[in-house]
Amino acid sequence: MELWYTEKQTKNHGITLKIRKTLYHDKSDFQSLDVIETAQFGRMLVLDGMVMTTDRDEFVYHEMISHVAMNTHPKPREVLVVGGGDGGVVREVLRHPSVTGVVLAEIDGKVIETSKKYFPQIAGKLNDERVDVQVTDGILHIQQNPGKYDVIIVDSTEPVGPAVGLFQKPFYEGVHAALKEDGIMVAQTESPWFNQELIRQVFRDISDTFPIARLYTASIPTYPSGLWSFTIGSKKYDPLAVDTSSLQSMNTRYYRPEIHRSLFDLPQFVLDLLTDRDDSDAV
Amino acid sequence: MELWYTEKQTKNHGITLKIRKTLYHDKSDFQSLDVIETAQFGRMLVLDGMVMTTDRDEFVYHEMISHVAMNTHPKPREVLVVGGGDGGVVREVLRHPSVTGVVLAEIDGKVIETSKKYFPQIAGKLNDERVDVQVTDGILHIQQNPGKYDVIIVDSTEPVGPAVGLFQKPFYEGVHAALKEDGIMVAQTESPWFNQELIRQVFRDISDTFPIARLYTASIPTYPSGLWSFTIGSKKYDPLAVDTSSLQSMNTRYYRPEIHRSLFDLPQFVLDLLTDRDDSDAV
Repeated sequence: MELWYTEKQTKNHGITLKIRKTLYHDKSDFQSLDVIETAQFGRMLVLDGMVMTTDRDEFVYHEMISHVAMNTHPKPREVLVVGGGDGGVVREVLRHPSVTGVVLAEIDGKVIETSKKYFPQIAGKLNDERVDVQVTDGILHIQQNPGKYDVIIVDSTEPVGPAVGLFQKPFYEGVHAALKEDGIMVAQTESPWFNQELIRQVFRDISDTFPIARLYTASIPTYPSGLWSFTIGSKKYDPLAVDTSSLQSMNTRYYRPEIHRSLFDLPQFVLDLLTDRDDSDAV
Repeated sequence: MELWYTEKQTKNHGITLKIRKTLYHDKSDFQSLDVIETAQFGRMLVLDGMVMTTDRDEFVYHEMISHVAMNTHPKPREVLVVGGGDGGVVREVLRHPSVTGVVLAEIDGKVIETSKKYFPQIAGKLNDERVDVQVTDGILHIQQNPGKYDVIIVDSTEPVGPAVGLFQKPFYEGVHAALKEDGIMVAQTESPWFNQELIRQVFRDISDTFPIARLYTASIPTYPSGLWSFTIGSKKYDPLAVDTSSLQSMNTRYYRPEIHRSLFDLPQFVLDLLTDRDDSDAV
């Protein structure tokens, strides 16, 4: 018998993966959680029926949501990760020697427990002494900590269920207030192929909230369309003005300082999302 | 009843697409041909069970295999397209006003007929007076035309069936011989996620054959992993040395002159394929 996991990534389209084993299934107060062993991508964490992370391609998402903003800030010390209960972003943030403290504000404690058990290479740094893991609503945490952070990284699930509020303008205004006066934020902002309306709206909201807004993309094969976007809002430092020759190599597998600036050289159809008034999705 | 088309892109992984209608099925001397109407990507051409092109994302592949090499050559006049019976590459090549002649060497006449009937926006330029459509083996055509072309574009199917020979070193040597002394070639070279061994081998072969070899990638959601690679071999002109400020805009949707150079700033794991000796696939 062959088991296949099929995920509808839109209502008309999806991916299908051969399963070696189903390892875990549970339901938390917020979402369903599954861990499956796939033949192609190794272990895979699935929340509410959507792939969150896999052993084989997790490095792209975690490096790319972290290092672009972290390397844009000249000396990030205090970092907040909203969501990100798998610990992958925390692991990448801790590669930066200037960091003195990382708060992880994850709403669902079961994501943290499950990741520690089934994804030790991803979650292993959650026990680092610089890390403060808080099972809490990131929106509340932000309201309670004005002016505290150098960098805030929004590692959310899709904009359905618990993460809806993380894609709305009041949230970005709260993030702005929780940052120091030279702080910088970055959020995962979905697929430039399948979520064009969302990207346009988020980019407008972040542009309205921060003097500097920039979008970049990365290749993630297990995410819808294989192309994923990230949006930066910054109070002072422009990712395009970074002296990349001064950046340290970090033994990363996707991000490298030499491509830092090129990441913002977007294909025409992605650039159009940031400048156009057309609100329809392409595919 | 809902119909879904599922394509195994590796033996452990694939995509699945909701079908509105199956429009055409046939078998030629070389391969099976299917045209289906998908809800997500519009009409789709499938050869031997592999997606070749779709209405919605074909612009990426056809622009990106064409314009990087065409814009690297200062004045391309005579162009050969090997494969490419759907006509998409010919359409893009003809956007360059210096072009006086394009030969299309497609081995399977049924691909040309089918594309003209079902994909008129892609195949429409095959009737242009500058185009010479030849139903022939591209390998033979290259042998018979030494020193003729400014640019040769290898728009092949996957390296199984009729296209196997197009991924082998003797073919690149033939392409070298069919180019003028300042000629340039480009080939589609599969997914940096799923075809790492092939990319390493092709890059070595093209590097051995041409003084300048370069690889770049593009996001194509209907191709395996969503990330696709293209490899350039050039006798004289380096894509990285192009004065991009002199390039004309062509109303393209993916390629634009401003990103020409950044395309070669590869993620670390792709760069490693071109420099490493490790021959295993990552996923």
